[in-house]
Amino acid sequence: MSALVTCADPRVCPEKWFNLNPGEVIVYRNVGGNVQHAFRDISVLDSLFTIDEIAVIHHTDCGTLHFKEEQVRDYVKKQVDETHSADVDKMVFGANADIEKSVKEDLAWVRAHPMIREQLKGGCQGFVFDIKTGELKKVGTA
Amino acid sequence: MSALVTCADPRVCPEKWFNLNPGEVIVYRNVGGNVQHAFRDISVLDSLFTIDEIAVIHHTDCGTLHFKEEQVRDYVKKQVDETHSADVDKMVFGANADIEKSVKEDLAWVRAHPMIREQLKGGCQGFVFDIKTGELKKVGTA
Repeated sequence: MSALVTCADPRVCPEKWFNLNPGEVIVYRNVGGNVQHAFRDISVLDSLFTIDEIAVIHHTDCGTLHFKEEQVRDYVKKQVDETHSADVDKMVFGANADIEKSVKEDLAWVRAHPMIREQLKGGCQGFVFDIKTGELKKVGTA
Repeated sequence: MSALVTCADPRVCPEKWFNLNPGEVIVYRNVGGNVQHAFRDISVLDSLFTIDEIAVIHHTDCGTLHFKEEQVRDYVKKQVDETHSADVDKMVFGANADIEKSVKEDLAWVRAHPMIREQLKGGCQGFVFDIKTGELKKVGTA
């Protein structure tokens, strides 16, 4: 079974991009398409179906390029009373400066994870999708 | 801006189900469509765009109904050396026994979260999508 990790951005639709049929590919999506939040999901899916490959697909003009950690942190702090400030300070919101680098960091995280199968690590590939041109560019691990 | 939280199941495609246009709705997906893993994402999205509504949509015949916590835990433990057993024991994989109940638990989690805006809590609704009939059933909080 194949899985795809990509962004929650409303312009993103992997089913349309890759003309996927229902039932064909598992699709995990969060802000940025960050695989580092998907360990629970990978564990469950791998135990149920055996996952052969994971494609981590970030995209150009991603929202994670347009905010700073401090900005989200300050916003959340304003919503809550001060007793939660320490909890908010511990949070990492996933701001990026370079989308290709963020894919590489995700691949490195998978490869270094002590609880992901070696074979599955080998089946994990990274890509940047160009939201304007529709070009899918493979990202190496080096 | 509206956001939709749903399952990574390959049969799930909210864009097709609801005939969504690109750019229309933020789509967060994980195993089970569990909103309790989406706090980082909600925080980022709300700070960037102001989220007015969140639809939590679980579905019939979800994979989370077909495994037990112990099953995934044992599987992960077999992949790793014993030094990680304590970490695996701490993990919650999200097994469910009742899909309507899991939506209610997600809604309750949002309503009780000290760091989610009151107005956004009011804009959070839960649903069960019938994967066979295409029926979308609203789930109350009571």
